[in-house]
Amino acid sequence: MEAVVLEKQHDLRIRDISLTEPLGPHDVRIDLRTVGVCGSDVHYYEWGKIGPFVVNEPMILGHEASGKVVEVGAEVTHLKVGDRVCMEPGIPDPNSRATRLGIYNLDPAVRFWATPPVHGVLRPSVVHPAAFTFKLPDNVTYAEGAMIEPLAVGLHAANKARIRPGDVAVVMGAGPIGILTALSALAGGCSQIFISDVQQPKLDLAASLGPIIPVNVKEENLVEVINRHTEGWGADIVFECSGNERAAADVFKPLCPGGTVVLVGIPGSPFPFDVSAAQIKEARIENVFRYAHVYPRALALMGSGKLDVKPLITDRFSFADSVKAFDYALHMPPTSVKVQITVADD
Amino acid sequence: MEAVVLEKQHDLRIRDISLTEPLGPHDVRIDLRTVGVCGSDVHYYEWGKIGPFVVNEPMILGHEASGKVVEVGAEVTHLKVGDRVCMEPGIPDPNSRATRLGIYNLDPAVRFWATPPVHGVLRPSVVHPAAFTFKLPDNVTYAEGAMIEPLAVGLHAANKARIRPGDVAVVMGAGPIGILTALSALAGGCSQIFISDVQQPKLDLAASLGPIIPVNVKEENLVEVINRHTEGWGADIVFECSGNERAAADVFKPLCPGGTVVLVGIPGSPFPFDVSAAQIKEARIENVFRYAHVYPRALALMGSGKLDVKPLITDRFSFADSVKAFDYALHMPPTSVKVQITVADD
Amino acid sequence: MEAVVLEKQHDLRIRDISLTEPLGPHDVRIDLRTVGVCGSDVHYYEWGKIGPFVVNEPMILGHEASGKVVEVGAEVTHLKVGDRVCMEPGIPDPNSRATRLGIYNLDPAVRFWATPPVHGVLRPSVVHPAAFTFKLPDNVTYAEGAMIEPLAVGLHAANKARIRPGDVAVVMGAGPIGILTALSALAGGCSQIFISDVQQPKLDLAASLGPIIPVNVKEENLVEVINRHTEGWGADIVFECSGNERAAADVFKPLCPGGTVVLVGIPGSPFPFDVSAAQIKEARIENVFRYAHVYPRALALMGSGKLDVKPLITDRFSFADSVKAFDYALHMPPTSVKVQITVADD
Amino acid sequence: MEAVVLEKQHDLRIRDISLTEPLGPHDVRIDLRTVGVCGSDVHYYEWGKIGPFVVNEPMILGHEASGKVVEVGAEVTHLKVGDRVCMEPGIPDPNSRATRLGIYNLDPAVRFWATPPVHGVLRPSVVHPAAFTFKLPDNVTYAEGAMIEPLAVGLHAANKARIRPGDVAVVMGAGPIGILTALSALAGGCSQIFISDVQQPKLDLAASLGPIIPVNVKEENLVEVINRHTEGWGADIVFECSGNERAAADVFKPLCPGGTVVLVGIPGSPFPFDVSAAQIKEARIENVFRYAHVYPRALALMGSGKLDVKPLITDRFSFADSVKAFDYALHMPPTSVKVQITVADD
Repeated sequence: MEAVVLEKQHDLRIRDISLTEPLGPHDVRIDLRTVGVCGSDVHYYEWGKIGPFVVNEPMILGHEASGKVVEVGAEVTHLKVGDRVCMEPGIPDPNSRATRLGIYNLDPAVRFWATPPVHGVLRPSVVHPAAFTFKLPDNVTYAEGAMIEPLAVGLHAANKARIRPGDVAVVMGAGPIGILTALSALAGGCSQIFISDVQQPKLDLAASLGPIIPVNVKEENLVEVINRHTEGWGADIVFECSGNERAAADVFKPLCPGGTVVLVGIPGSPFPFDVSAAQIKEARIENVFRYAHVYPRALALMGSGKLDVKPLITDRFSFADSVKAFDYALHMPPTSVKVQITVADD
Repeated sequence: MEAVVLEKQHDLRIRDISLTEPLGPHDVRIDLRTVGVCGSDVHYYEWGKIGPFVVNEPMILGHEASGKVVEVGAEVTHLKVGDRVCMEPGIPDPNSRATRLGIYNLDPAVRFWATPPVHGVLRPSVVHPAAFTFKLPDNVTYAEGAMIEPLAVGLHAANKARIRPGDVAVVMGAGPIGILTALSALAGGCSQIFISDVQQPKLDLAASLGPIIPVNVKEENLVEVINRHTEGWGADIVFECSGNERAAADVFKPLCPGGTVVLVGIPGSPFPFDVSAAQIKEARIENVFRYAHVYPRALALMGSGKLDVKPLITDRFSFADSVKAFDYALHMPPTSVKVQITVADD
Repeated sequence: MEAVVLEKQHDLRIRDISLTEPLGPHDVRIDLRTVGVCGSDVHYYEWGKIGPFVVNEPMILGHEASGKVVEVGAEVTHLKVGDRVCMEPGIPDPNSRATRLGIYNLDPAVRFWATPPVHGVLRPSVVHPAAFTFKLPDNVTYAEGAMIEPLAVGLHAANKARIRPGDVAVVMGAGPIGILTALSALAGGCSQIFISDVQQPKLDLAASLGPIIPVNVKEENLVEVINRHTEGWGADIVFECSGNERAAADVFKPLCPGGTVVLVGIPGSPFPFDVSAAQIKEARIENVFRYAHVYPRALALMGSGKLDVKPLITDRFSFADSVKAFDYALHMPPTSVKVQITVADD
Repeated sequence: MEAVVLEKQHDLRIRDISLTEPLGPHDVRIDLRTVGVCGSDVHYYEWGKIGPFVVNEPMILGHEASGKVVEVGAEVTHLKVGDRVCMEPGIPDPNSRATRLGIYNLDPAVRFWATPPVHGVLRPSVVHPAAFTFKLPDNVTYAEGAMIEPLAVGLHAANKARIRPGDVAVVMGAGPIGILTALSALAGGCSQIFISDVQQPKLDLAASLGPIIPVNVKEENLVEVINRHTEGWGADIVFECSGNERAAADVFKPLCPGGTVVLVGIPGSPFPFDVSAAQIKEARIENVFRYAHVYPRALALMGSGKLDVKPLITDRFSFADSVKAFDYALHMPPTSVKVQITVADD
């Protein structure tokens, strides 16, 4: 089949690749429709690796995906041929201790699309476990379906925060994950979001999506803004989505006593953690690793109209232009948020 | 001062009453603006008592209130003369064990407006602790401010449910509290509400307010509707707001395994509780008594536009027509939800 | 193999039965050592059914079991031949929604030993999934290992209660499950237990096992005792383990504001639930159905000496005397708690 | 009155000091009995300050205290003259937002004994709010009563950890707070504690107090020990009590997926926080600042015999030898844990 293959660092091409994927009794075969380009895909293209994960063999990219079911295994009951679906890209070992406890995202044996040595899905079709394949509501498009994967990270963060209705939250970082976390926090019960960044176009986009107040930290002091809005009390929740060490070191400053910090971004190196600052507020800190059990929730919120990700899909390329899409994503203008590739039309 | 006084059962009148209310250092004096008519006010009018609370002395009615600050005590810092405010009607003993634990609504010594022998606020002015007086956001009217009290019950229920983003909820009963609970559950993170009742006009109103699916239980089977929508899994949360014993006895039927029931309505007599039905799903059941720490959250959600109660304010009377307002509320048409009285214009 | 077979109601015998149990790659084969007699086993013997579960075919009894591993499947890594183990008797569908969420006890497809039509383990050997087979610590005997099953119910109840260190708890009912719940609540953080019953010998036994104060409700008023001990505040937790409708109806009376009720016992019919009484304290009610993820915790507490169940093993019979053991259990004196059968010596 | 006054850094003496303490209606007057010497007292003696808190005026030391009630205010109901009591040393503003929410320890306006400019209680008597004065059970001595203060820190940490029965915990640091946290975690539901330190005498003492396994990190690798004990899964909870930056940086290594870290110790400077290490396990991190609502729980556990602190009271001085006691505490042998001063005999 024709696929978007990363041969090695800097060498991405569309070419034929031979894959044999037998259909197990609990699997479905899916024809891909839309695949989003994630920062991690771009990172493998640019650097050939992420941390310990090195591209030693040619690997198909892409893991934010939607498609149509074309074949179902003998034991599958909740899906049928023709269903429009999106898929979780990570498959845990069903017999691991983490999986049995319901925290399958923490299973070290997870096999995740487009993480070496596992192939991604910028290709015509894939076989996938039905348990990790989710039917799209009628009013959710394939493009939106392919947004469920990054949205799931934000929604998992919102879930971990244990938002109480009316909470005020800060989101540090207005990249795709920051904005999706802000939308998730609003859908999940927050009354108001303050989002901070240094890129004004991203802040402007975020501010257009709901009760989200942009704070350009080159011009305003975030803590002063929060104190003014909360009579000096502080924000109930701080989501760190920038992955910036200096931002991370400041998470306790805008936080209220008894508040919650959720670490979503992944700084490249450890940040200096001020225990006294955390203790004087008895901050609870939650850490997020991908997501678990979130896809049905994301689809329900999107289907009922409570959460709209369409304004974030800013760029679209055809499958034939996939390499062009990656080169564009490498040097994306600040007005762009999400690049998607149409693998096939419906 | 002129006040709406319930002399005794069936005998309600506007008349002069002498009240001396000194202003303590932590108090504010408020001129009333809007006061809503609650079912409990009407119940005292009709029956002269609610359970153990009997109207033995003339008592001013009304506890859903907003107004303007006209005087502030020496130690008050967060309010000033001219502030537009709404007020919590229940004042706990600051030294009680429940209050110290932060669950002041459970303090048996709470003094609550218009609960004998404590006067309500259908009158020109009242002295109130500043700690239980909350500034209205600029875009929240006095009429909306007087809705915060019943809304607080629904929002407290949503808080107790510990909604996870995307939860599906059932609300049993489409009266004022049922609809406000539905709106609170949506604002608090639910993706979809199913609301059940037997009165079609109330269901129609509820359905117009968001992703709320009406279920007229005279025509449809609630459990079948939920099973169809959730692939047989059940709803994550069931809010019982009808106060009907038969409805309460059925709360476990539409519930999913591991789901949550919140008992908001108060049936007049015990209902038959089927322990096996609750156990096989390991239902968690939360009970709601008024609210605590909810007013700022309700105001934040209203102020940011996430929660709109204006469509529920269906009827308005002048202060001079207060007795008429109560007689109307006694025999309210099913298209009415909330009756309010304008005590004074701004 | 020779097994203890319930042919039908009242007809229990030791006889040969032919069972073919192939060993799957994730299974182990276990030679049984000790099997406890549970109230449900006795109930099947006496009545031939429990609720919807009817003994239509001959069925081997027994599900509280320990044994020795004699064969391991190809994929099993954490167990080896010769390991001393105990086993969870309920095996869920690994692909069910409940199992994936980590609440496998709520999977309706669970197959549970000695629940028709599934055979129990009063027999020489059994094949069982390794994931539901747990190694005994060196200082835990086979007899104690066979107590893990009923203990797991109590420990699951303690877990559901979310005990905070120092909580005071009431346990209603001093049968095996009541006493095991009391021990679990103490091991799980309670400072003090009040246990209520009408049988003085059971209360005396319970009182000898730790800071457990017996309350014979034929002689003392439970609410008065609790109020005296807690300065009128009430108990933090009430575990209902009696399965008695009248006891269940009274669970809110000794409870403190904001307290927790855990329903462990299963009354034969619905009890009258007083919503007002639950609401005025905002009681949280948890329901218990068997257990999940509890065996390793029970073994850890037993192994470290924090929880000792040996005093509860009051009666022991040989395998040859199994029918005698059941007849004894049918008419057990109040000084007896747990009857066990030695299937084989080590 | 004669008191132990820190005039300035290095200058501690017993001398007469004049204090006027009127008795308010909600206060009690207490004659001191036992006062423990805390590390913070010693630190003020040695350095004249702790962080921003500087001893600019002479200040009485001591805040771990027990005594006898000698006078009660007019509104006090739960205490009477002659009661043996212990006292919380920190008094919050009853009208602060934090206090109303029940998290009074986070009120920035807290006045805390022996924290400049507030006097401590190494003196004959003190006036204190009855709400922060707690009656000792009959079987708890004054010496044990004076241990409730440091124990409260450990018990608050155990509470924050939300221990589930049977959890395995690591405690880093075997100083007084580390050992008291270990005892609290056991009393609070843990099955087994691993305590790490470099001082063997402290480890030996800890190991004698229950199922506590000592790990001398000069000789053993903590992570290897934990992995061996937990089949490579990790500990459910890690309590960081050493206040050592390098220990703090390692908290995620012995932790299990989905585990909890509680930061109790206060490193003098920020430690490098490895977000990836925290995220891959989705660690929840709780921070502890003193305690709230813990005294009654500590007393209940001590009174019922579940928690015994007597072995930790290793050294005792008379009031006349108070300066000697501080000099001893400054250079305490590793076999010493807690130094106490007898202010008066009963």
